[in-house]
Amino acid sequence: MKVKWKYSYLKKDMDAIEHTLRQLVTTEQPILHAASLKLLEAGGKRFRPVFVILGAKFGKYQLQSIKNVAATLELIHMASLVHDDVIDEAKLRRGKETINEEHGNKIAMYAGDFLFARALESMSEIEESKAHQRLADTILEVCLGEIEQIKDKYNFKQNLRCYLRRIKRKTALLISASCEIGAIASGAELKFQTVLKKYGYYLGMSYQIMDDILDFTSSDKELGKPAGSDLLQGNITLPVLFAMENPTLHEKIIKVNENTSVEYMKSLIEDIKKSGSIDRARDISDRYLDKALSSIKDLPKGEAKSMLITIAKNIGKRKS
Amino acid sequence: MKVKWKYSYLKKDMDAIEHTLRQLVTTEQPILHAASLKLLEAGGKRFRPVFVILGAKFGKYQLQSIKNVAATLELIHMASLVHDDVIDEAKLRRGKETINEEHGNKIAMYAGDFLFARALESMSEIEESKAHQRLADTILEVCLGEIEQIKDKYNFKQNLRCYLRRIKRKTALLISASCEIGAIASGAELKFQTVLKKYGYYLGMSYQIMDDILDFTSSDKELGKPAGSDLLQGNITLPVLFAMENPTLHEKIIKVNENTSVEYMKSLIEDIKKSGSIDRARDISDRYLDKALSSIKDLPKGEAKSMLITIAKNIGKRKS
Repeated sequence: MKVKWKYSYLKKDMDAIEHTLRQLVTTEQPILHAASLKLLEAGGKRFRPVFVILGAKFGKYQLQSIKNVAATLELIHMASLVHDDVIDEAKLRRGKETINEEHGNKIAMYAGDFLFARALESMSEIEESKAHQRLADTILEVCLGEIEQIKDKYNFKQNLRCYLRRIKRKTALLISASCEIGAIASGAELKFQTVLKKYGYYLGMSYQIMDDILDFTSSDKELGKPAGSDLLQGNITLPVLFAMENPTLHEKIIKVNENTSVEYMKSLIEDIKKSGSIDRARDISDRYLDKALSSIKDLPKGEAKSMLITIAKNIGKRKS
Repeated sequence: MKVKWKYSYLKKDMDAIEHTLRQLVTTEQPILHAASLKLLEAGGKRFRPVFVILGAKFGKYQLQSIKNVAATLELIHMASLVHDDVIDEAKLRRGKETINEEHGNKIAMYAGDFLFARALESMSEIEESKAHQRLADTILEVCLGEIEQIKDKYNFKQNLRCYLRRIKRKTALLISASCEIGAIASGAELKFQTVLKKYGYYLGMSYQIMDDILDFTSSDKELGKPAGSDLLQGNITLPVLFAMENPTLHEKIIKVNENTSVEYMKSLIEDIKKSGSIDRARDISDRYLDKALSSIKDLPKGEAKSMLITIAKNIGKRKS
């Protein structure tokens, strides 16, 4: 997905947030500093900061406080990625060696804790207790989602409801919270807070479904990790759930475990791509996008609303 | 150490905090719930909640808000224990199987995250941003301390300064923060906040040194884990640092690694006990206690101050 804000009115603010993030991962502890900086520099779309800014644009926008809120949401996201990679025993993230791969699981566990602690530090000057409450609720749900994800690994009997609940916790709630907390922190009207929270939720659901699709349809290079990694790691995503409705594919899919060969996976990925399940998953993603777009129809017109619409429209087209 | 508050004017408030803690570890996720409850029920001295209460007694004391702050500090402590046990590959905690031993490192990592998230939730209604800032700073330091602890494991060349910095981060800062945040949250005068912060720091240093001594002098049963566990796990504590000044003991100590036999450890523990290094460590602990006691001499008289004194005086006498 093209990062549109690079050319937009958000550029200056996103640069300031990037600077804040760099300051926040700075520490005298050399391993932690190197590991955190590497993850930060590997990129990522800075999706959550963008949504914090856009949410805040519906209130009294002040970059000085909003940039800290934006950094908080990004750092929480990063912390959860680091702990996720431990669970998944992932070797690559954003095309670079993961912290667990480079330094082992224990350092990775504390690196996640460190990023989390920095996230709280960045948020601690915000006065609105509602913002802290929403943040705490969200972190809790994200954490519960991660535990569910361990339990659901290689569980080929799970249903659509289980998948949707998992991606809600894994992705949608943090994006939803980014939009809403941005609005809360800038003192936006309650009705705008509610609308932005909904938008973020629908958009996040759509985004994660697309992410799960791209794990099959993108190249290793575009993904920064091998295609089909999710399934190989036992994460049963929407295209897989649909593909399993076909008895032959079902047989083939339930044989997957962490030792499955590259050849087997390549052949299976092709089968899943041919099965029509990718298109069905895309339909569901599109339905969430439609809901995201219609949820914000009553927001006041302006550049912020335009960007929310643009981002939603681009989710469906993204390639990585 | 006898838990004096059971018979004191803190009983009612501590019962309320216990109830709050039970509510906070409740979750529909069965493994998390069971693991957290087991850790909670295994006991612990609830030292941090006691200090939050006592700190708050120097301001406008309101149990309704203070009990949440107290629960936050205890949950952060519990979360750090859970992650510590992963690092130490500890099998027992408070006489019970650790979460990593029972459910594996991954579940333990997320159980720590869960307790941490609940800690934030409990604190999120507190309005004073200074309390949030102090909490965030403390969490960050605790986290950095944990990383240092990994680095310092089996490092027999570390010095006293290194040890003191580590126990400051590991224990003293969280106790110091408990006293101070209690005072902040109840709107106590700034000068009282400062005094309580200092008291907590000195007391915490003394407490941890005593803890490190008890690892040698207590029975397995009193400790709830094998005596000498710290050294076996590579945590170089004050009695060990002093013992290493003796060349013969130095030779014997630097041979310890995670595979050292029970017999070797038993003999080594006896040698360390005979070397006089326990008494020297106790002297340092006592010096911190004296500082703790003299730091609060200007606090207004009353039951809270009496308890702060009683606790300090009992630290030196505790057996477990």
